[in-house]
Amino acid sequence: MAMVAKPAGYEPIARNYPYNCWWVAAFADEVGRVPLGRWLLDTPVVLYRTQGGEVVALEDRCPHRQAPLSIGKLQGDAIECGYHGFQFGRDGRCVRVPTMASPPPISIETFPVREIGPLVWVYLGDSACLDAVPPPPTMAWMSDPSFAIRQGKTEIAANYLLLKENVLDLTHFGYVHAGSFGITNVVGKLTVTRTDDTVGYEEIFDPAPLPDGLSHAFGIAPGTPWSRSTKGAFLSPAAQYGSASFADPRTPETPNASHQFAHFTTPIDHEHMHYFYVFGRDYAREPAAMDHFAAMVEKGFKEDEFVLEQVQALISRRPRRGSTGERSVKADAAGVEARRIIERWMQRETIPA
Amino acid sequence: MAMVAKPAGYEPIARNYPYNCWWVAAFADEVGRVPLGRWLLDTPVVLYRTQGGEVVALEDRCPHRQAPLSIGKLQGDAIECGYHGFQFGRDGRCVRVPTMASPPPISIETFPVREIGPLVWVYLGDSACLDAVPPPPTMAWMSDPSFAIRQGKTEIAANYLLLKENVLDLTHFGYVHAGSFGITNVVGKLTVTRTDDTVGYEEIFDPAPLPDGLSHAFGIAPGTPWSRSTKGAFLSPAAQYGSASFADPRTPETPNASHQFAHFTTPIDHEHMHYFYVFGRDYAREPAAMDHFAAMVEKGFKEDEFVLEQVQALISRRPRRGSTGERSVKADAAGVEARRIIERWMQRETIPA
Amino acid sequence: MAMVAKPAGYEPIARNYPYNCWWVAAFADEVGRVPLGRWLLDTPVVLYRTQGGEVVALEDRCPHRQAPLSIGKLQGDAIECGYHGFQFGRDGRCVRVPTMASPPPISIETFPVREIGPLVWVYLGDSACLDAVPPPPTMAWMSDPSFAIRQGKTEIAANYLLLKENVLDLTHFGYVHAGSFGITNVVGKLTVTRTDDTVGYEEIFDPAPLPDGLSHAFGIAPGTPWSRSTKGAFLSPAAQYGSASFADPRTPETPNASHQFAHFTTPIDHEHMHYFYVFGRDYAREPAAMDHFAAMVEKGFKEDEFVLEQVQALISRRPRRGSTGERSVKADAAGVEARRIIERWMQRETIPA
Repeated sequence: MAMVAKPAGYEPIARNYPYNCWWVAAFADEVGRVPLGRWLLDTPVVLYRTQGGEVVALEDRCPHRQAPLSIGKLQGDAIECGYHGFQFGRDGRCVRVPTMASPPPISIETFPVREIGPLVWVYLGDSACLDAVPPPPTMAWMSDPSFAIRQGKTEIAANYLLLKENVLDLTHFGYVHAGSFGITNVVGKLTVTRTDDTVGYEEIFDPAPLPDGLSHAFGIAPGTPWSRSTKGAFLSPAAQYGSASFADPRTPETPNASHQFAHFTTPIDHEHMHYFYVFGRDYAREPAAMDHFAAMVEKGFKEDEFVLEQVQALISRRPRRGSTGERSVKADAAGVEARRIIERWMQRETIPA
Repeated sequence: MAMVAKPAGYEPIARNYPYNCWWVAAFADEVGRVPLGRWLLDTPVVLYRTQGGEVVALEDRCPHRQAPLSIGKLQGDAIECGYHGFQFGRDGRCVRVPTMASPPPISIETFPVREIGPLVWVYLGDSACLDAVPPPPTMAWMSDPSFAIRQGKTEIAANYLLLKENVLDLTHFGYVHAGSFGITNVVGKLTVTRTDDTVGYEEIFDPAPLPDGLSHAFGIAPGTPWSRSTKGAFLSPAAQYGSASFADPRTPETPNASHQFAHFTTPIDHEHMHYFYVFGRDYAREPAAMDHFAAMVEKGFKEDEFVLEQVQALISRRPRRGSTGERSVKADAAGVEARRIIERWMQRETIPA
Repeated sequence: MAMVAKPAGYEPIARNYPYNCWWVAAFADEVGRVPLGRWLLDTPVVLYRTQGGEVVALEDRCPHRQAPLSIGKLQGDAIECGYHGFQFGRDGRCVRVPTMASPPPISIETFPVREIGPLVWVYLGDSACLDAVPPPPTMAWMSDPSFAIRQGKTEIAANYLLLKENVLDLTHFGYVHAGSFGITNVVGKLTVTRTDDTVGYEEIFDPAPLPDGLSHAFGIAPGTPWSRSTKGAFLSPAAQYGSASFADPRTPETPNASHQFAHFTTPIDHEHMHYFYVFGRDYAREPAAMDHFAAMVEKGFKEDEFVLEQVQALISRRPRRGSTGERSVKADAAGVEARRIIERWMQRETIPA
């Protein structure tokens, strides 16, 4: 057990996320010809598609009188302020002021975006660093036709780091998710693997009966001991994944089913995050079975949301008395390493806190 | 185009309104024999009428144990605290303490008031400056029997300055009010007129069809091009007006109809204002027609309220990134001048910020 | 009349209650085998009973990842965190971490508790001072079988001091409670008695008709003048009592009925308190009569709550203008003395503000 001091990010106000990083701004299907205003990294951003279908991300603030542009509407590829009708092109330059013959030389910030599969990524950082920044992480299963895929989104009233740690220590399944996922053997053989900028875990569990929903999906009798292993990794401050593989205990080396989860968190501000998730599986892929799976996942994610909001509320309320800091144990190895990786991202940061 | 720095008032906390100024406290018909508590200029004020019908404005805070006097009741011309029964006369002096044979020498602040037409004005400033302060602005049409008059009030979660600018730049009509007022030719020949403490505009538009409601009220065929001019002015930090005149294009010099708007804003605190408005017109004055007109006006003012609250929310949330300040254009001439006038009022201020 | 400066506690943020004091944490019947999380003195506390029935009070914060332990559940006499399953014994020591063979040497704070009659008291102060701190005040009538007893609890959005003063100056009855308690002769012969750490008052009133509810309970004709005296005291920063005795005016020395009130306030934070109250009477003790009495008391306490929340709201909103401070009169003698006593408790305080 090691004692870990409160990271700087846990102090109110201080920023604990890097700007020089790709973050998820939205699901691709949320962005269209109606402007979508979204607060990302303490910054108002408006997203929309051009007539040609490309995603544009601009500062969501008219420089004239500070109205959010997202309450306006699109005129061709430009966005028109809903207050006095100033228009800005996709490059951020003002292209029209109703009272002027030609537009004045004013502009708003424009942010690089990348649409990859179901996700729209945005870069709010220092443009000089864009080329040096790791690209948005991708996961092959998201575009693998052997997987049935679902997605969802929620806003959680908690610092984004709290979710990062949550999905790197699955021992919480036995406590937070006993009533939803129904996995109760939560301690297995854990291996943690580090690279410079990622940390992953792999955990192998002794064969044990699965929850009824899963054994039914696999076509095995309820209560049959089955092999299970889980894997997960912190890929960037914005992205993590987790997966579970299942196998007949007689042939544990050849998993015959897996499900995959991608967790994308984007800070809204110090005490709120957007949480985008994508999940899929290569078994029981019929819509009705997937609906059932999705309902279980949504229930489980609401359980996480409840706990994380309780933790954040306790931190935000700032107790006068009692202990402070956090005490980590071996099971936190991946989560603690993730904090260190984020600290390194922050040390490379070129935008003042 | 000129660049205008954020005025000091846009910074949170700093006061951006003068105390040494008459402000609207209430409509006359809101003030009676039940105490009315109202927060004005960051100050709790209680208003009531004496038995003789005069309006009294006192500090809304019992000096004994800090209860708002407005939760108490009137005893003759005095107000009785609802907590321990202390009574204060209209001059602010304590006239009774239930446990004492004679009242102690304590008192509360009393504020000068003036009841003018439908409005009650209050002066919360330095009493030494009262004589030097401009009187409450008046508008002749408010007591002109050829006008049918209506009034209304709302609280807006925005700094009062945002509304001042709103009513000095009518180009927002084409964007904010396209669905209510239906005026879409919003750019005309603009003249801005300044005096030391006021700024006004006059704008003449080319003949154009009016919205159906108006052409009907004027008894002209829908779509008939008609002459229109608008006028407005900043009269004091508390008061502005705006008007529109309509004329047959063949005789544009003799307007045959006009409507008038008076806009009174009183800061509650840095992020909230009371907005009192009075409007009238000298045409289509029957109650049913006026009801229709009032419904349109209320709808339009709700549209302004929505936009101003969005602007304030963006400012109050304090983005970490993106541009700051505001960029003004020629159409803002009157609004920018209004800010300068308020700055001069602030420079004359004798009450510490 | 004396002028009393704002006590330090009225300033936001500064603590105006002592930690080195016994405070009421809960009613005994609120604490059982389901963890009860409660914020007391700006500190998260979790309360529960062991299998043997003893009350335990622990810091309500898991030192692992800051989850409130109160969202977890009991395992025997230990409490299990609802996030990752860490368990803590009643002595605060970690007794189990699911992923570890033996628990690490981590612990949470445990707080001394005393269960006395209907109340659970807790001590959050400096343990070195525990022996020197006055024990929780007790009142004989609470366990006297000749009294019928009721209890209640509410949270008030006001600093706890506001309620202390409220129950030490009963002149508010004629204003706040005219519609509930119906006692209108509120000024009598007042005697104030001080000891080092307590202050009490006794007040004798001239015979006067009682409210109908009371005269009916005493079996006397409505309107019969009756003798009444009241008594009350500040016993500690956490506890006060008040009582009224009634007697036939022909034999005023031998009261034939009394009711008793105990008021326990525990700060939640600077602007909120828990208010626990217990009341009883030795007359008209049948359940239906007590229900009627309790309904009247609850109505009266809601009236106090309304006034105190209005006072706190005015203070918290921090008027920019107007007078400050408070002006006390002779009727405030007990309340002013109570403030001085609390100041002395604060001067003895060994925990930094």
